[in-house]
Amino acid sequence: MIDPALALAALVFDRDGLVPAIAQQHETGEVLMLAWMNRAAIEETLRTGNVFYYSRARRTLWRKGEKSGQTQRLVEFLVDCDGDTILLRVDQHGVACHTGHRACFFRSLRADGLEEIAPVLVPPEELYRN
Amino acid sequence: MIDPALALAALVFDRDGLVPAIAQQHETGEVLMLAWMNRAAIEETLRTGNVFYYSRARRTLWRKGEKSGQTQRLVEFLVDCDGDTILLRVDQHGVACHTGHRACFFRSLRADGLEEIAPVLVPPEELYRN
Repeated sequence: MIDPALALAALVFDRDGLVPAIAQQHETGEVLMLAWMNRAAIEETLRTGNVFYYSRARRTLWRKGEKSGQTQRLVEFLVDCDGDTILLRVDQHGVACHTGHRACFFRSLRADGLEEIAPVLVPPEELYRN
Repeated sequence: MIDPALALAALVFDRDGLVPAIAQQHETGEVLMLAWMNRAAIEETLRTGNVFYYSRARRTLWRKGEKSGQTQRLVEFLVDCDGDTILLRVDQHGVACHTGHRACFFRSLRADGLEEIAPVLVPPEELYRN
């Protein structure tokens, strides 16, 4: 296990104690999502190898996939030049988005508006059936 | 040109009027950087095809590469599921990072700390010589 203090020392947290974290599928380069981490999320992620985030809406620590089963395993933890963004290279089990799309960035801006460019792979009612 | 109103209507701005934007090299998938956009940055990006951000440090609109020459051309503008993150697929001219690294995420967390995993391609003093 990597000592979380090594990451925490390099990071600049915002006024809410959070840092944005980009999750990228490690071998394909696909950008899956952006979420937020606090100190506890970073500690739990490094301790367990499962990615945790901080939910701003629910104001709670959140293990990715805890309800949907769509977990993320940490592959590599990167920090940007000024320490205010994290890039998580992960192995996403199933779909990253609560909509059932593989990634959250499934809407592309076109001349007539946002167009869905990726399919729903798992219906949301299957993701959150319990 | 795409009407910026189509993007603005789909986005949720934070209390500072900003949205985080991830820049990804379009054909390789490399995550180059994360920066912030306000309404004006989105409008100028869509109007010109050159990526603009909002500098939180300098509190000003900023055309990427305006000083360094390391510009970004917009290839695709994506919005995430809940409209609070932008993914810019871009063509990065030269290096994205002010340190002279290709991408800002050149530090990887290892057992003994952060390790630089990518080289400086352009010395910073060459980037900002004027």
